[in-house]
Amino acid sequence: MDVDNLHLLIREAISELPLEREPEGLYSPVRYTLDGGGKRLRPLLLLASAAAFGADPALFTSQAAGIEMFHNFTLLHDDVMDNADVRRGRPTVHRKWDVSTAILSGDAMLTLASQLMMKGLPAQQAVDVLTLFNATAMEIYEGQQYDMDFESRGDVSVEEYMEMIRLKTSVLLGCATKIGAIVAGASEEDAVNIYDYGVRLGLAFQLQDDWLDTFGDPVIFGKAIGGDILNEKKTWLLINALAAPDADLLRSVLSDRSLQPAEKIERVKDFYKAHNLGALCHGLIGRYADEAVRSIEAVQAIDRGWRDFFIDIARRSASRTH
Amino acid sequence: MDVDNLHLLIREAISELPLEREPEGLYSPVRYTLDGGGKRLRPLLLLASAAAFGADPALFTSQAAGIEMFHNFTLLHDDVMDNADVRRGRPTVHRKWDVSTAILSGDAMLTLASQLMMKGLPAQQAVDVLTLFNATAMEIYEGQQYDMDFESRGDVSVEEYMEMIRLKTSVLLGCATKIGAIVAGASEEDAVNIYDYGVRLGLAFQLQDDWLDTFGDPVIFGKAIGGDILNEKKTWLLINALAAPDADLLRSVLSDRSLQPAEKIERVKDFYKAHNLGALCHGLIGRYADEAVRSIEAVQAIDRGWRDFFIDIARRSASRTH
Repeated sequence: MDVDNLHLLIREAISELPLEREPEGLYSPVRYTLDGGGKRLRPLLLLASAAAFGADPALFTSQAAGIEMFHNFTLLHDDVMDNADVRRGRPTVHRKWDVSTAILSGDAMLTLASQLMMKGLPAQQAVDVLTLFNATAMEIYEGQQYDMDFESRGDVSVEEYMEMIRLKTSVLLGCATKIGAIVAGASEEDAVNIYDYGVRLGLAFQLQDDWLDTFGDPVIFGKAIGGDILNEKKTWLLINALAAPDADLLRSVLSDRSLQPAEKIERVKDFYKAHNLGALCHGLIGRYADEAVRSIEAVQAIDRGWRDFFIDIARRSASRTH
Repeated sequence: MDVDNLHLLIREAISELPLEREPEGLYSPVRYTLDGGGKRLRPLLLLASAAAFGADPALFTSQAAGIEMFHNFTLLHDDVMDNADVRRGRPTVHRKWDVSTAILSGDAMLTLASQLMMKGLPAQQAVDVLTLFNATAMEIYEGQQYDMDFESRGDVSVEEYMEMIRLKTSVLLGCATKIGAIVAGASEEDAVNIYDYGVRLGLAFQLQDDWLDTFGDPVIFGKAIGGDILNEKKTWLLINALAAPDADLLRSVLSDRSLQPAEKIERVKDFYKAHNLGALCHGLIGRYADEAVRSIEAVQAIDRGWRDFFIDIARRSASRTH
């Protein structure tokens, strides 16, 4: 069983979900959302973790589909809240249909995820998985709320930002790896360590997303860069820049309505570069990747091949270009 | 343990939920929604069912709070979809805050409900309760989707309408009574019969709601009547009226923009009365109440005092005035 097998299992599990159902208005946006693709990182981590602890990943494809269903539910509802028009190159659900459809289909996806999480597991494992899954979901809502709160605040600290992305993004990666540990019957200590691996990987991933949005190559990254700058999104880069002694200069650039978008992006990037923020951010990403590696190396009863796979993902997260 | 004790248990369980948490923007709309009151019918049915099968209701107040949390989540999201301004005499969450807050707080309430459903139960019972709860939630979303679909359709049949209200409203009452049976360890046959009781009670309740909105006494009902008529909501009354041979007369009244609202309500009521629809609707409500009574009478291992309580609710649902 290698990574390609896992990807195949995930693709099959998602395509075989019984979503060709009535009423069409409820289920077709669910299919549309899942058809949008994405990296399928969370189900991959879940199945790889189960395999790493000696279980047969083919037995837990419902849980893999469930965590992907949940992730897509959060994207669907977040897109409504963020008033986003496009997701993965296609119209968002609330644009293609309407806000009511996006709300109700998202609700259905959350419940479908909960159903998939339990499916086929012995009762105690189902309870353990759902307990973790629900606690993680609450953290993710809290992270989304902090993210929205930050939009109207000028005094967000780096610590607050890191806690927000831990909640909004990283804990779901930890949830994925820990579910793999639970269903495979790993020890509590190993489950905690592989959870920590997932969270630290998630922090590295999110910071790299922020970095790529500003410093990425638009051709390799696959989308226009500078969106965060134009939206004045409170990223690690902007929060640190606003703490610089000469932040007034940055503020005047951000509020200058005479600047063309491309010019504004360049001026803000120049400010970031003058303060070495791109390199500092990259260094931090590397440190989280190192921490993730230490967490996976602390896991005792792990298959060495899969351990190397987890190490490889962490290393690549620090240098990925898209 | 009598009904007043159950109401007290429900009030305490809801007031003791740990909702004084950060971020305030996520949790205060949850508290606001639960503070809105309501009949607390679903937690009452759940605890009465547990008591009827010989269990101590005080052990299952988390499940009671959970089903009330879920019910309030559906109202919160439905209010966004229906663009409703007022709920229980207060501004709806999306009016008092905004749509994003209503979406995210509702999501949190759905997950909180799932957490409460499992709380304190042995693993197999937790799985049984959650399996029923999730299946019921999916039916409720389907019912809401059909309800929205019906708005733009002119050919809704009475059968389709009854199936819609079964899904959107009634199955949650069946879910409440069946959860009581599950946690009390009732037999599968008794659990099915008390589930059927809840569903039939729910059908009687929803039809009575429709009837009251048109024929209720606004002073006793506690709110203005005729809202369904003005919104041309596809209720049992309107669907049957549109099937009458002289329905064109009704259509011309509904589309007459020169009519004042009060006049339009009276003219539509006159049409309903001319076709005896109020009395026919009332007769149907009585039949569902009778069916509910038959279902509860089929339950074997039930406390007689609590059985009489369930019969009383069913009888009163057919004659309630608010």
